[in-house]
Amino acid sequence: MTLLLAISGWDPDPWAERFRQLLTDRKTVILGEPFDRREVHYAITWKHPHGALANLPNLAAIFSLGAGVDHVLNDERLPDVPLARVVDTDLTNRMSEYVVLHCLAHLRQLLHMIQDQRGHIWGENRGQPAAKDVTVGILGMGVLGQDAARKLQIMGFPVIGWSRTPKELEGLPAFSGTDGLDSFLSRADIVVCLLPLTSETQGFLNRSLFERMRKGGRLGGPVLINAARGGIQVEEDILACLDEGVLKAVTLDVFQTEPLPAHSPLWEHKDVLITPHNAAMSSPDAVAAQIVEQIRKMEAGLDLNHVVDRDTGY
Amino acid sequence: MTLLLAISGWDPDPWAERFRQLLTDRKTVILGEPFDRREVHYAITWKHPHGALANLPNLAAIFSLGAGVDHVLNDERLPDVPLARVVDTDLTNRMSEYVVLHCLAHLRQLLHMIQDQRGHIWGENRGQPAAKDVTVGILGMGVLGQDAARKLQIMGFPVIGWSRTPKELEGLPAFSGTDGLDSFLSRADIVVCLLPLTSETQGFLNRSLFERMRKGGRLGGPVLINAARGGIQVEEDILACLDEGVLKAVTLDVFQTEPLPAHSPLWEHKDVLITPHNAAMSSPDAVAAQIVEQIRKMEAGLDLNHVVDRDTGY
Repeated sequence: MTLLLAISGWDPDPWAERFRQLLTDRKTVILGEPFDRREVHYAITWKHPHGALANLPNLAAIFSLGAGVDHVLNDERLPDVPLARVVDTDLTNRMSEYVVLHCLAHLRQLLHMIQDQRGHIWGENRGQPAAKDVTVGILGMGVLGQDAARKLQIMGFPVIGWSRTPKELEGLPAFSGTDGLDSFLSRADIVVCLLPLTSETQGFLNRSLFERMRKGGRLGGPVLINAARGGIQVEEDILACLDEGVLKAVTLDVFQTEPLPAHSPLWEHKDVLITPHNAAMSSPDAVAAQIVEQIRKMEAGLDLNHVVDRDTGY
Repeated sequence: MTLLLAISGWDPDPWAERFRQLLTDRKTVILGEPFDRREVHYAITWKHPHGALANLPNLAAIFSLGAGVDHVLNDERLPDVPLARVVDTDLTNRMSEYVVLHCLAHLRQLLHMIQDQRGHIWGENRGQPAAKDVTVGILGMGVLGQDAARKLQIMGFPVIGWSRTPKELEGLPAFSGTDGLDSFLSRADIVVCLLPLTSETQGFLNRSLFERMRKGGRLGGPVLINAARGGIQVEEDILACLDEGVLKAVTLDVFQTEPLPAHSPLWEHKDVLITPHNAAMSSPDAVAAQIVEQIRKMEAGLDLNHVVDRDTGY
């Protein structure tokens, strides 16, 4: 009943320590250490090296350390066992903090204020639209999208939602599918992307989509916030559309290449706000506790929560 | 039944137009134009020149165009008639937008992110505290303070309130008076000032107060947000306390002198976020409509709302 930690990009040691503390009766090994492949029942992954989870004859489940599982599913040698993702209240709250912060920042022209401050300029025109005059459209109405929507509404924003398949959403207009996308985009002043990265959403945030967003509006043009995955956006199109006035401003937490290369023109663009993929870092303790709970459930013969559908990719 | 607009610092013409449209049967005059002093029943003021409202024998009421009335009460020749301030849902919502935005900005280290972006630096340590780990203390628990408190709580912040006189506040710990101030300060990671400017609050945000705020905490030190009046803060103390690490960061919307002089060292300080007194610009249309409603109430023999107590100054 060994747990195998297959992590790249993060330090695996603190994770190993957490699991050892929570499951004192199991062995937790880190990929790269010697271990008996037959004893591994559970794999815990963050961007594991492709193929690293193959040839584990007794593997019963794979757990992703994040909400997104694109980093797992792109492994062509991924074994066919249940794959569960993290759905954690802390992560949900952190994402809503980020979404509300950046919607308010664009509403209240914070980038502009900071540029004025750098020039010792006391802004002449201090009038700003109110939240009630600016519609936020959320792409992806899962747990994260619904929590952000509720909090944005309390701040006064009208909110609309879009999802791949039709969804009943309490208290907000819901759009879905290719047919609903144009109606959704034409009503949104700020588009917030919380979609999973799948074969369908790869490159989804591109020029064609930006050109269909609401023109004008109280912010002077459409604003994009991507807190999902960099693979969903086409950075060349974002830059060109900002320069052409098709987009007014963007907040990006994720990038096609991470860390964002130092030579990327995004860094310098005055209408771009960059954060280093930290919109929703879940608390490692909360994530470890949730995975341990899932293991206990499984061993008690109960169904795992948050199992990924490999066809849709989330 | 003439309305006298006594405004400085803003263009009075759009205001005159609004009142003329709403009260077609009255005369609206702008200070500086010729008018019959005996016909003035109502004065509408924003930073009027001192003495300008004296010698109006039939004056029945004064209306402030803002929520604060310090700009009116500091006129020693102010006539002894009811003075009403604006309490407007739009203004309340705008202030809460500002307070939530800047609490989240400090929580999520936005100043630091923006500095990193300028240096093309992908932040190494991306861990950040969650709202639940950071207590916001609000100084001034009137209509504005209570609305901001509720919205901050929904975003996950623990919130505490302080007011001059004891107040029962639903769902949050309330402190009051000089006796309660130390307990309040020692618990707050972010202090938000929404107090009126009165003789008691002049210079209230000073070194002595900053030194009593919670040390350490998850933000690495206390944060101050002043969205009330510049006269409440001692800018020299703010700068010194930032440099000494007594304060971690500040957001200031108001200043001892406005516009903030170009030579102020506040502009350049890396831990200072400056906005040009625009935290809560109420919609001129909503303000004019509220004043007209108050005039109609008064003429129907009903009590005015939001009349200022000249002893407390709010």
